[in-house]
Amino acid sequence: MMERVRLRDLGITIGALPTGEHNAITDVPGVLVGHATVIADEPRVARTGVTVIVPREGIWSDNVFGGYCSFNGNGEMTGVHWLEESGMIDSAIGISNTHAIGVVRDTIVAHAVAHGQIGGFLLPIAAETYDGWLSDIDAFHITPAHVFAALAAARGGPVAEGNIGGGTGMICYGFKGGIGTSSRVVSTKSGVFTVGALVQANYGARADLRVDGVPVGLEIGLDKVPAREEVPAPPPPGDAGSIIVVLATDAPLLPVPCKRLARRAIVGLARAGGVGYNGSGDIFLAFATGNHLPPGAGAPLDVKMLPHGQIDDLFVAAADAVEEAIINALCAAETMTGFRGRTVHALPLDELRRVMARYRPDTERF
Amino acid sequence: MMERVRLRDLGITIGALPTGEHNAITDVPGVLVGHATVIADEPRVARTGVTVIVPREGIWSDNVFGGYCSFNGNGEMTGVHWLEESGMIDSAIGISNTHAIGVVRDTIVAHAVAHGQIGGFLLPIAAETYDGWLSDIDAFHITPAHVFAALAAARGGPVAEGNIGGGTGMICYGFKGGIGTSSRVVSTKSGVFTVGALVQANYGARADLRVDGVPVGLEIGLDKVPAREEVPAPPPPGDAGSIIVVLATDAPLLPVPCKRLARRAIVGLARAGGVGYNGSGDIFLAFATGNHLPPGAGAPLDVKMLPHGQIDDLFVAAADAVEEAIINALCAAETMTGFRGRTVHALPLDELRRVMARYRPDTERF
Amino acid sequence: MMERVRLRDLGITIGALPTGEHNAITDVPGVLVGHATVIADEPRVARTGVTVIVPREGIWSDNVFGGYCSFNGNGEMTGVHWLEESGMIDSAIGISNTHAIGVVRDTIVAHAVAHGQIGGFLLPIAAETYDGWLSDIDAFHITPAHVFAALAAARGGPVAEGNIGGGTGMICYGFKGGIGTSSRVVSTKSGVFTVGALVQANYGARADLRVDGVPVGLEIGLDKVPAREEVPAPPPPGDAGSIIVVLATDAPLLPVPCKRLARRAIVGLARAGGVGYNGSGDIFLAFATGNHLPPGAGAPLDVKMLPHGQIDDLFVAAADAVEEAIINALCAAETMTGFRGRTVHALPLDELRRVMARYRPDTERF
Amino acid sequence: MMERVRLRDLGITIGALPTGEHNAITDVPGVLVGHATVIADEPRVARTGVTVIVPREGIWSDNVFGGYCSFNGNGEMTGVHWLEESGMIDSAIGISNTHAIGVVRDTIVAHAVAHGQIGGFLLPIAAETYDGWLSDIDAFHITPAHVFAALAAARGGPVAEGNIGGGTGMICYGFKGGIGTSSRVVSTKSGVFTVGALVQANYGARADLRVDGVPVGLEIGLDKVPAREEVPAPPPPGDAGSIIVVLATDAPLLPVPCKRLARRAIVGLARAGGVGYNGSGDIFLAFATGNHLPPGAGAPLDVKMLPHGQIDDLFVAAADAVEEAIINALCAAETMTGFRGRTVHALPLDELRRVMARYRPDTERF
Repeated sequence: MMERVRLRDLGITIGALPTGEHNAITDVPGVLVGHATVIADEPRVARTGVTVIVPREGIWSDNVFGGYCSFNGNGEMTGVHWLEESGMIDSAIGISNTHAIGVVRDTIVAHAVAHGQIGGFLLPIAAETYDGWLSDIDAFHITPAHVFAALAAARGGPVAEGNIGGGTGMICYGFKGGIGTSSRVVSTKSGVFTVGALVQANYGARADLRVDGVPVGLEIGLDKVPAREEVPAPPPPGDAGSIIVVLATDAPLLPVPCKRLARRAIVGLARAGGVGYNGSGDIFLAFATGNHLPPGAGAPLDVKMLPHGQIDDLFVAAADAVEEAIINALCAAETMTGFRGRTVHALPLDELRRVMARYRPDTERF
Repeated sequence: MMERVRLRDLGITIGALPTGEHNAITDVPGVLVGHATVIADEPRVARTGVTVIVPREGIWSDNVFGGYCSFNGNGEMTGVHWLEESGMIDSAIGISNTHAIGVVRDTIVAHAVAHGQIGGFLLPIAAETYDGWLSDIDAFHITPAHVFAALAAARGGPVAEGNIGGGTGMICYGFKGGIGTSSRVVSTKSGVFTVGALVQANYGARADLRVDGVPVGLEIGLDKVPAREEVPAPPPPGDAGSIIVVLATDAPLLPVPCKRLARRAIVGLARAGGVGYNGSGDIFLAFATGNHLPPGAGAPLDVKMLPHGQIDDLFVAAADAVEEAIINALCAAETMTGFRGRTVHALPLDELRRVMARYRPDTERF
Repeated sequence: MMERVRLRDLGITIGALPTGEHNAITDVPGVLVGHATVIADEPRVARTGVTVIVPREGIWSDNVFGGYCSFNGNGEMTGVHWLEESGMIDSAIGISNTHAIGVVRDTIVAHAVAHGQIGGFLLPIAAETYDGWLSDIDAFHITPAHVFAALAAARGGPVAEGNIGGGTGMICYGFKGGIGTSSRVVSTKSGVFTVGALVQANYGARADLRVDGVPVGLEIGLDKVPAREEVPAPPPPGDAGSIIVVLATDAPLLPVPCKRLARRAIVGLARAGGVGYNGSGDIFLAFATGNHLPPGAGAPLDVKMLPHGQIDDLFVAAADAVEEAIINALCAAETMTGFRGRTVHALPLDELRRVMARYRPDTERF
Repeated sequence: MMERVRLRDLGITIGALPTGEHNAITDVPGVLVGHATVIADEPRVARTGVTVIVPREGIWSDNVFGGYCSFNGNGEMTGVHWLEESGMIDSAIGISNTHAIGVVRDTIVAHAVAHGQIGGFLLPIAAETYDGWLSDIDAFHITPAHVFAALAAARGGPVAEGNIGGGTGMICYGFKGGIGTSSRVVSTKSGVFTVGALVQANYGARADLRVDGVPVGLEIGLDKVPAREEVPAPPPPGDAGSIIVVLATDAPLLPVPCKRLARRAIVGLARAGGVGYNGSGDIFLAFATGNHLPPGAGAPLDVKMLPHGQIDDLFVAAADAVEEAIINALCAAETMTGFRGRTVHALPLDELRRVMARYRPDTERF
């Protein structure tokens, strides 16, 4: 099998907009990403972790606008009541496994307390997808130390993808899933802005997978690469799975436009084959760093607002970046064996390239 | 029976904040109110009308931020999808009877077309309460001419209350209801702002009415003043009825804070005895003129944002102004006889004063 | 150019589920559709109309559960407050042009009044898309007579598509758009159910159009078929446009699952290339006839509830039916010349077939 | 000072409906409440705890319908995405301090795991108010053991109020607050139902407090009983504080009516003087045990639905029970000294009785 590369390394692009430097959420200036990965076989099998996104350094004293969208709420994202009410985010965002969302959330508070930054109150955003197939999730592996480690590791630049951080044990379209990222650069009358996406992809039935419209999941069906292998018995079929999306932009979006941007994650998800099955927690967050919002201001804040009429390219960018981030997660993730000897296979990239070539005529588009 | 006066003329105040000059929504600079009243006995009985609120002169080219809240949605307010999506209001707001909401809405568009102001698209806000007890609502009395008349009549200064405009045929707590208004002035670190409320009050059971906490509805019960009289048979008891609230402020509120302000109308409603019965359409709108928003801007708009930490007094002002506006509607509305010979009695102000005196000890508060 | 046929007549299918008998929303037993088309050149140019969907005969006395979703709210759908609050629909649903939504809404009330069916109160659902390019929309062409005519024409069986009813003057992806419909049949543990979709499609940029994942809009670009022709000047580019979707099913869905079903229209829209541009009113309605809900019941109603775990295939069906209904609208609509001599071209079906063949390898899938 | 009693023991009633046997949320058959209280001075000061509400025994295998309302979202309630999507609750509900919401949430999962009840996935509801004035909240006192203890203690019958469980360190209107409860019994055409409320009350400025409409907070002002005492310095003024409300009923409410019921908590809150200040997390939950909902059903579930037209008395019951539960919390809570030597005084019940007598004339109402 060929080595893991990103989707664009295979000559496949999503949409017409250019990417940022790293084709990552960190292309939005100031955004930091950190991972802590927990892999162990003893005493109980762990294939899990934590990923954090810091909207910008100094987030405690320089908040950002944000908004969210729940496409199918069979999942958890904490902190949304205040996000909806205030339109602001004032701390790091954490993503982990389902049973760890509480410890991740509380530890983001503890981290702020430890840094003397908290004035009594913080309502962090923590989200999850379920990794109980490959990881013994009922062992409650994640501890505050892992969350502190992910926060300490947060930085800009290239972002590791696949089996890392919160994405470690995830499964997507019956292939190994995990963390993926992508970005787009858009030019508007109000300036040039970047939109970045980071996903923790853990959803979908094999037959649904599409890459740039091509029915890859039908072509690399379960007869070619089984969705999940275990010893001795096959898993019951199920619609379980989820996807968390975090979108970032440096455009001056007010809170409601952030929510609108988050909603466009549905477009990227749908184009990649997602339907939002009943068992899926498809919850999407967007934040915008284009304004500076010190808490406790005594006078009206001066904020910039991108006119609504200029937002379309950001919508396209969000949809494209989410679609590519999902496929990047599949491209980066490697075959993993975990809990109870179960194996989940990586998306075979040579097969992917072969299928794409069959479905794309020889034009300048491909 | 004593002549109709406003609540404060009876020596009764709601809350501690001062009112604006006219104790009316028009105390918010630039806000205009216009009424068209339709009263006729032939060929079919009409006790209805239209009230319009113009957020500011030139609203087509200088939009305002806004938001809404549906406390109990057994009613109609058009235009809310775009309000929710854009956070903006770009035209006059109309209030009328239930069957007329379409013609009011379409005519606000036609009025803009007639003034050459429309660039192809307008999604106006029109709201309603049901006046079918006193007016033959199935006659569809309201025509475009009435809406044009109300728009032409829109002006600042004192606002007529009671049996006027959209409030003409309304019933509230089994007394004659209608249009009411009130305002408050608040001082914040960011400056002095006005909050104004206008209500079309048409809801509630007699026993529920409270004035500044005093159970006036129990004291002036149905044995003293019947809720509704008709010849020959009494009406079936029912929970039908609704209240539309429009809140205005000149504070620089972004869209979500407008929605928060609108939600505080529930507080004023609840203190006046409202419960939000199943049959009630209790839908509340708020807009803020503190920013100037020309449509079609080519560059980022500079907007001011009141810090969240300074909004509490505006919340108090909204609750107090709504509570007083409701009672003002009751104080202004006069006994009316209409459809099928039915009569609805005015709130007897001498009784109101007597009850308040019994329940309020002799302190500086009263 | 070849004659207009439906997408399946070209050998192109969307998804794997079978369709109902007519591949139309009327495959859901009891659902009726009626059109009134208004085409005139004098005194002012009309290319408009009204389409009504009746959830079932006798809807006034046997309500259905329903829910809605606003993906991008630059449009209007009345009646949603009570829909959200009650989860029920008790009258016909109307779709027309933007300026006519009021008259459509009021006339649905008047129609009920004329049939003696109304107990004082009705809050109908009326929705719109903008046809001002081909029709002189500011002439306010639609009258109550048109709405009565559409209601009188409502029936089951095959549904006319394209330039008809509310879809008469619509434009989609720079081709002639309009009304389209499709259906799917799904088998669940709880029985076999039908999901039907009807769309009024009036949105999208040419380059975005995809058919079953194939970038048809790029291949049949504006160089081949101009989006819009007028004499003498070309139109300004714009993102205006909208899509209304109505989904119906006979599955026993409670109100919230109806809302979930409506949300899956986004998936179908996205797969067809929709992004939900700022100027688009993308508002989606779903209703379920699987329960019988007489108004004014005195005892608890017995209702059936499809277990959440069985809803996935209905989600797939909704997404597939919406995607196909959109393309059916394009396939059915014919080239039209209207207001100011403007022409909008039909999707060339021979080109469509040619492009699909290029992009689809010779497998059993196609 | 007189001993602590419940509001009704003072001869003060709220509304006209009768209470259930214990005037508590546990009057709804099957509802269980458990507290774990954490009070310590060493090594760090703890005045905190956990309260759990179990919708019914065997909740894992017999779910209930539910819904929620965020009146002012400066707080946290987990589990709401799935609650909104499914309309169901399938586990215990926890309430604690702000920093403990994660551990409470995760431990409700761990408790289910420990009992072998979980099929891989649980998204519990945990909510909070902030007790950092009387408790050293940054010490993160709450551990899984406390949550297990509260769950083990859950039972029906009388419910302890005031300084107990999650309410231990709470402050309300500048008096000592905490846990309060109340219930109402309503008769409908569909049968007799109970509505119960439990609050964790931790909000409000002294001047705002009203009891049955009487301005108690103005009469027992800060000059009479200081809101908060500390050595040596007074606290900064602030609007911090929150209230969590849990409503239960045995009426057969579907999910959306549960949400409507939750919304009526605003009415009770407003009548007691609440405004929903910016710093307040006012999030309200309601569930209905009137249907039995086994997870994983293979056939359509038979459910009962209370007709909308019969819900009004439940709305009144919810408002009244919430209002009384708040005052019950104040009546039960005792003066407490905690973190940094700060003291918060109990509501003086003799003063309360004195004020009520002054404001209520000698009628049969009082």
